[in-house]
Amino acid sequence: MPQTVSPLARPFPAIPPIAGVTLRVARAGYKDWGRCDLTYVELAQGTSVAGVFTRNVCCSSEVELGRTNLAQGQARALVVNAGNSNAFTGYRGREAVEAIMDQVAAHLDCAREQVFVSSTGVIGVPLPKDKAKTGVSAALTEQPCSWEDAANTIGTTDTFAKGVAARAVVGGKPVTLGAIIKGSGMIAPDMATMLGFIFTDCAVEPAFLQDVLSAANRDTFSCITVDSDTSTSDTVLAFATGKAGNVPLTGFDSAGADAFAAALHDVCRQLAHLVVRDGEGARKFISVYVTGASSDHSARKVGLAIANSPLVKTAIAGEDANWGRVVMAVGKAGEPADRDTLSIGFGGTWCARNGLPVAGYDEGPVSAHLKGQEITIDVDLGIGNGRATVWTCDLTHGYISINADYRS
Amino acid sequence: MPQTVSPLARPFPAIPPIAGVTLRVARAGYKDWGRCDLTYVELAQGTSVAGVFTRNVCCSSEVELGRTNLAQGQARALVVNAGNSNAFTGYRGREAVEAIMDQVAAHLDCAREQVFVSSTGVIGVPLPKDKAKTGVSAALTEQPCSWEDAANTIGTTDTFAKGVAARAVVGGKPVTLGAIIKGSGMIAPDMATMLGFIFTDCAVEPAFLQDVLSAANRDTFSCITVDSDTSTSDTVLAFATGKAGNVPLTGFDSAGADAFAAALHDVCRQLAHLVVRDGEGARKFISVYVTGASSDHSARKVGLAIANSPLVKTAIAGEDANWGRVVMAVGKAGEPADRDTLSIGFGGTWCARNGLPVAGYDEGPVSAHLKGQEITIDVDLGIGNGRATVWTCDLTHGYISINADYRS
Repeated sequence: MPQTVSPLARPFPAIPPIAGVTLRVARAGYKDWGRCDLTYVELAQGTSVAGVFTRNVCCSSEVELGRTNLAQGQARALVVNAGNSNAFTGYRGREAVEAIMDQVAAHLDCAREQVFVSSTGVIGVPLPKDKAKTGVSAALTEQPCSWEDAANTIGTTDTFAKGVAARAVVGGKPVTLGAIIKGSGMIAPDMATMLGFIFTDCAVEPAFLQDVLSAANRDTFSCITVDSDTSTSDTVLAFATGKAGNVPLTGFDSAGADAFAAALHDVCRQLAHLVVRDGEGARKFISVYVTGASSDHSARKVGLAIANSPLVKTAIAGEDANWGRVVMAVGKAGEPADRDTLSIGFGGTWCARNGLPVAGYDEGPVSAHLKGQEITIDVDLGIGNGRATVWTCDLTHGYISINADYRS
Repeated sequence: MPQTVSPLARPFPAIPPIAGVTLRVARAGYKDWGRCDLTYVELAQGTSVAGVFTRNVCCSSEVELGRTNLAQGQARALVVNAGNSNAFTGYRGREAVEAIMDQVAAHLDCAREQVFVSSTGVIGVPLPKDKAKTGVSAALTEQPCSWEDAANTIGTTDTFAKGVAARAVVGGKPVTLGAIIKGSGMIAPDMATMLGFIFTDCAVEPAFLQDVLSAANRDTFSCITVDSDTSTSDTVLAFATGKAGNVPLTGFDSAGADAFAAALHDVCRQLAHLVVRDGEGARKFISVYVTGASSDHSARKVGLAIANSPLVKTAIAGEDANWGRVVMAVGKAGEPADRDTLSIGFGGTWCARNGLPVAGYDEGPVSAHLKGQEITIDVDLGIGNGRATVWTCDLTHGYISINADYRS
């Protein structure tokens, strides 16, 4: 946790134990930083797994192998390396991941495809096999740790540990969801976010777990952006141990499927927001509400054009009600829009309606709103019923300071 | 010229007088800044005009009217307002532009479609008609001014006056080109740049002038980016007075057409570079050379993904040879690429070749290169013959300082 804690941070929640999930952390020493940097999660036999991954063409071996492993639908373990993303490291990087999979599979006596590995950190340096082996060996025999310890251990430039808990009743049985996530930069949609791991004791068939996760991803992780940059490693995995004893969910017709899907969606939304709240240099959390678009898809693209605009983000940082920059961002999105039906507002106050500044517009309430930490931008395109919400943070000196001196 | 002069600035060149072009400046007082802010250029009868404009859907009335006016191919005057972009100001903004056109047309006894107006500055405030009228009246009777005076007067957040001169021999006649441009932020391709005005005494038919300008735009203004944001007002106009006495150019078969096109292309490239050199907060000028792409179009998209990446631009600002961020940007471009044929270098030194870090890679020469002001990034995709060059600047604290406090 090298930086000052984000002013938008949230306290780590109380996440109860989840049957079939055991967390351990250890020191692999990927960097010379005197902290745990390897997280090992052991999962009960019969655990279902689903995942969504970065669309970056230059993805890491971890992402490639993870996609492949998903096909068999079961997971027994997760290993997360912090400090080295192992991306763009060719066959040597791939060998390092396979060595971890083999080591854990031998320990658990399972197929190596049931061992999932994620890595985060600098690009272009092969994950050192010896350090990984030492770290995994240590983790296998460590005492179990807390959710917060695991959340801290998967972090790199994160300034606070991020976790979410939720409960639902599925087929008459109480089920629990617990999740941790890391990420604060190189964050953009299509698969937005960093490394996120969701665990539940609910019994869910892998295919349905994938359906629910993919649907949740579309409205949550794919609707956040910090800097428009898409990591080579972005991964969200969901693991369902089945220990809650409910009849396994196989589709939306299953009893309690809606409740489970709603809980998972809520967890994903909260996780996504936590990543924005730790956006590098962020001082304000911005919700962009787009309505009146030609379609939901179009609304999301307009929202992202606004949320990715450096000029909009610096205006918010400067607490400047510069709605003209929002007009510019709408116009550059390349989506259907009509200047003469466009309305723009901040914090519930319209600055411009139907292509004209509001008569007698009083900037007072808008200026007061912009001084706060939670900012809303309202955009109504006035041409259809499409809508979307996108979340981002402001662009500040802190972002420059962090990123102009990351590796050194 | 409110900011400290960019460290990448170039001295204003000696631009000779161009027959048929008379420059004048005056004070309209669009802002309370005690400087000339209205530029008036009178053009000889028979002047051809061509133009390229922003693709921003929410473009200004100036852009809409300029596009319409181009149809008749002739220009007698140009008026440039600085301090107010008049964008997103509805019918009131449009009336203000039409009033300027009428006032000048009456003075010159020409069709109002032959009067071109450009405005730059804050969005959403209608251009005040009374100030425009006063400013135009003053300009009509002012003494002619220098190219540098005009270049200064069209500027807003620019930190130095930007101009380019070129000569060519067309059909045995020497012709001169002179050009001025303004722009330092809200700059992105598809039509990249701000307000640029090119003048020549060469005789060129309007349709061919448009062909030459459009072709030059594709490889110059459309290949620069400062912050990925596309202005609502971006305009480049070319005016050819025909006073050089050459046989009018009608196509590439005309004698001297190649020489003229090459000179115009060179002027556009230099103008585009000057805008990047005045990029808000810029301290380094970055050339991104992309080769081996599946097509030239694809190469340009990859180049722009790199040039628009905040993480790449902050790494350059930090003089950090973080080629992993270039890998990331290539991967997110959404263009054909293969991690295992990708090569990345800085300043002529390869850091990674064919998907692997270079064996025995010595960061020394790269680090030395990054300490300079003129940075090159080389990317070879290794899958085809497509190539493109894109220019940008680094992303620094200066950008945040300028944009988080622009309007106040």
